[in-house]
Amino acid sequence: MFREILLTFRHGGCGSYTAPVHTPTRLATAALVAVCAGAALTAAPSAAVLNVRAWRETRERQIVGELMRLVALPNIASNRADIARNADLLTTMFEARNFNVMRVETPGSPVLIARRDIANARGTLLFYFHYDGQPSDPKAWTRGGPFAPVVMSGPNLFPLETTSTTLNPELRVYGRSTSDDKGPIVALLAAVDGLAATKASPAWNLRIVLDGEEEAGSPNFGAAMKQHAADVRADIAVVVDSPRHPSGLPTVFYGSRGTSGAVITVYGAVTDLHSGNYGNFTTDPTMALAKLLASMKDDNGNVRIKNFTDGVVPLTPAEHRAIGELPNVDAKLLEQFGLMQAEHPDSRIELQHNHPTLSITGIESGAVSAGARSAIPGSASARVEMRLVKGLDAQTQFDRLVAHIREQGFHVTDTEPDRQTRRAHRRIARVTRTGGGFPVAKASLEDPRTAPVVSAIRSLDQRLAQMPTIGGSLPFATFSETLALPTIGLAIVNFDNNQHGPDENLRLGNLWDGIDIFAALLTMSR
Amino acid sequence: MFREILLTFRHGGCGSYTAPVHTPTRLATAALVAVCAGAALTAAPSAAVLNVRAWRETRERQIVGELMRLVALPNIASNRADIARNADLLTTMFEARNFNVMRVETPGSPVLIARRDIANARGTLLFYFHYDGQPSDPKAWTRGGPFAPVVMSGPNLFPLETTSTTLNPELRVYGRSTSDDKGPIVALLAAVDGLAATKASPAWNLRIVLDGEEEAGSPNFGAAMKQHAADVRADIAVVVDSPRHPSGLPTVFYGSRGTSGAVITVYGAVTDLHSGNYGNFTTDPTMALAKLLASMKDDNGNVRIKNFTDGVVPLTPAEHRAIGELPNVDAKLLEQFGLMQAEHPDSRIELQHNHPTLSITGIESGAVSAGARSAIPGSASARVEMRLVKGLDAQTQFDRLVAHIREQGFHVTDTEPDRQTRRAHRRIARVTRTGGGFPVAKASLEDPRTAPVVSAIRSLDQRLAQMPTIGGSLPFATFSETLALPTIGLAIVNFDNNQHGPDENLRLGNLWDGIDIFAALLTMSR
Repeated sequence: MFREILLTFRHGGCGSYTAPVHTPTRLATAALVAVCAGAALTAAPSAAVLNVRAWRETRERQIVGELMRLVALPNIASNRADIARNADLLTTMFEARNFNVMRVETPGSPVLIARRDIANARGTLLFYFHYDGQPSDPKAWTRGGPFAPVVMSGPNLFPLETTSTTLNPELRVYGRSTSDDKGPIVALLAAVDGLAATKASPAWNLRIVLDGEEEAGSPNFGAAMKQHAADVRADIAVVVDSPRHPSGLPTVFYGSRGTSGAVITVYGAVTDLHSGNYGNFTTDPTMALAKLLASMKDDNGNVRIKNFTDGVVPLTPAEHRAIGELPNVDAKLLEQFGLMQAEHPDSRIELQHNHPTLSITGIESGAVSAGARSAIPGSASARVEMRLVKGLDAQTQFDRLVAHIREQGFHVTDTEPDRQTRRAHRRIARVTRTGGGFPVAKASLEDPRTAPVVSAIRSLDQRLAQMPTIGGSLPFATFSETLALPTIGLAIVNFDNNQHGPDENLRLGNLWDGIDIFAALLTMSR
Repeated sequence: MFREILLTFRHGGCGSYTAPVHTPTRLATAALVAVCAGAALTAAPSAAVLNVRAWRETRERQIVGELMRLVALPNIASNRADIARNADLLTTMFEARNFNVMRVETPGSPVLIARRDIANARGTLLFYFHYDGQPSDPKAWTRGGPFAPVVMSGPNLFPLETTSTTLNPELRVYGRSTSDDKGPIVALLAAVDGLAATKASPAWNLRIVLDGEEEAGSPNFGAAMKQHAADVRADIAVVVDSPRHPSGLPTVFYGSRGTSGAVITVYGAVTDLHSGNYGNFTTDPTMALAKLLASMKDDNGNVRIKNFTDGVVPLTPAEHRAIGELPNVDAKLLEQFGLMQAEHPDSRIELQHNHPTLSITGIESGAVSAGARSAIPGSASARVEMRLVKGLDAQTQFDRLVAHIREQGFHVTDTEPDRQTRRAHRRIARVTRTGGGFPVAKASLEDPRTAPVVSAIRSLDQRLAQMPTIGGSLPFATFSETLALPTIGLAIVNFDNNQHGPDENLRLGNLWDGIDIFAALLTMSR
């Protein structure tokens, strides 16, 4: 209990995202840290980390400023020119820290490999980040814009340029990729700077890999890594992405989910038809699509597609144990998201991360408001996304989806149906596969080769959320399987960062924690 | 049989929209018309009509040119400035034909009342048209644009300005409102011109009423007509809108359907959520909406909303007879629209026009293609449209829809739900009423007061499609009930005009037929 109170003084929370903000005096801080270190047994930050932290407290505005300059560059992977500008700036940023930067061109975005060797290295440490972001409609943002970053104090704009104090850790910086995944890059660079400024050095050779199309499924990343396997050889690969466990605890993870999915288009007449003249006569493709989608889940959120979970590998005892040790955050999430109950109220979210999903991420036909017409649309489309867990692969899951659509009486095609096809079938669905860029990955929680990472993080805060898998998808398997490196995932950013949505943000306390963690990892024992 | 062959020579079809185009010599035409008139008994166009027709054959380019100038003015009712420009041009067009034009300002679009009295009138004849059009996405147009009209010969641009011959009736002019409803206005004016050019005069005082927001439900039209009842007093009101029966026959109608509907929004979390992190946890509002919509109709297109048809007034024997006499066009429509079967294959479309409808005219959440993100949207919306028939009203039908939504377990609100509401209910739907501008209207097929209109049209072609109601909605009841005028509907334009969709068009043969019909009506006996 006493320790909990103490912990809430560090960065406003040591994990408890609802903790009140305190501003202890310098004296109080010193006293509390001392007690905290004693109480937490192994939670004893090294001198190097404490020095970096003290340096950071003098440089907070500059660190946030560097993040905002990076966020201000639009970074949707489909825009090659924008992506090139990001790669250029990142190259400059790493070269300024004495990294040697290779730019690996691919058919998509370039992959950057920033390398820095040191004398008497304890080994080689690889960090993966991505620098692209999800598309976003600027009109949906209420705080800044995706590429017009702002710092906010709650609902109020915080004038970063006019303040000279250290920054409240509850401040947030808003903008696309502040959390996913540019913020963590800036945290790493700040740790490198902090070590240099305090006359320390990383203890490991560093390989930083920057992926430019993670949000597009990293279609070219695996090939680039294979081709440059020698350049990224490492003793440990740390995949840095994804939010922390919603408890706010420092978080590592051991796997990520795979992706599959489809765009489904259901057809009515060859043109939109006047709803008065042809209602009750033509096929209503939106209704047919609604019925098809409705057939995919029951009222309790259980997927009704045959064999949907066939082959899923059960959790190991260690994985079950790790989930059991996590604080239960379901009630807090429901409150945060304004929901009455979870889709599977008898389970918990971390268990659900180990089940496959089926979600509808988009649907469209005709118009609902602006541009609404009294016409029955000629077609209706939906985007269905499936996340995969250990034992499932993208093609198999897609095939199961297609089989289900056929079972609902649809003629399935992968091209626009011609007139003859339309005349031959009452129900027609065009189904094209999406996703599939990321296979499922799962490393062992008990691998001793990644244990130093866990120990280093525990040196900052004995408590640690160990998640067998994250809910999201990223190229974890490129490291754990393709390159066969001992791989672990690291999550730094606040869980409520609105990742992939409007108003994406990074809580500054998480940025500061991230700098601590990188300082600890760069200087950890083998 | 012989008569059928003859009829196909007039305007390329006398109704059969699939008839081949013939270009008989002047001699052959004269001979055939003579035979045709004899065979068709009462189908004997008056001298006045034949004179107008001969005049029209010398003026076809100019008539189409006038239509294109009118169509080139954007006319979506919500744009007041555009609508004013249409009202200005129409005023000029009617004043040029010696009409006195009153501009009745309303909270929406102005209503124009163009009046022309003649000496020794047989009575007063009122024509209703509307000059506004449905919204349209220019990018969806493949021929010209909504307000960039073009004349096409099949798939080829037809250079109207360089031709000096009469125009093939199979040519079509493309643009918003070419058919719905500016083309018929131009046909009336051409008939007025034709009478003047051939030293004839209308036999009736004329009252032309031009509605500027029919496509928006004519919210202000009824009040304007009530206020100006004296200015539009007439012996017969002819509501000119809607396509001909798909057989292509000259068409009159005796009623129109009412409209009701709703925009339904189903809620998930307060923000879009990462589909990996929160799939299997958050509410998927698109799935919930799909299930709700799917509950509204069974697999055979029967509406499952309780009491949906309660109160519907059955067809009279005369109405049944009229429908029985119509050519069955279901098979042709299915072919035209690329459909395998009708929603109700055991019925026929004209019977279905006498049943209420429920159609989905739009649905949206997240994004399917451009801008697609790996996020579960925070809400999903659909626009449901209901057409009403005799015995139903908009509010009752809306209330039945809302009751159905409640029965599916939804908490129904008409405002954005607050956090407390969200936390209290698993399923929430915001339902707001749309439509309702048009009540159902149905006049008697056996009213002797509108019989002169039927006789005049039959004088051109003995065959006539008499539809108890059209599928669409228009302010028929303003004349038949509010003003209590003997009212009949007149449809001129080709059924395949893509009304309300992209590539709206008018077949020139229908424009020529329309001029014949207006010439016959303006000069008909009482």
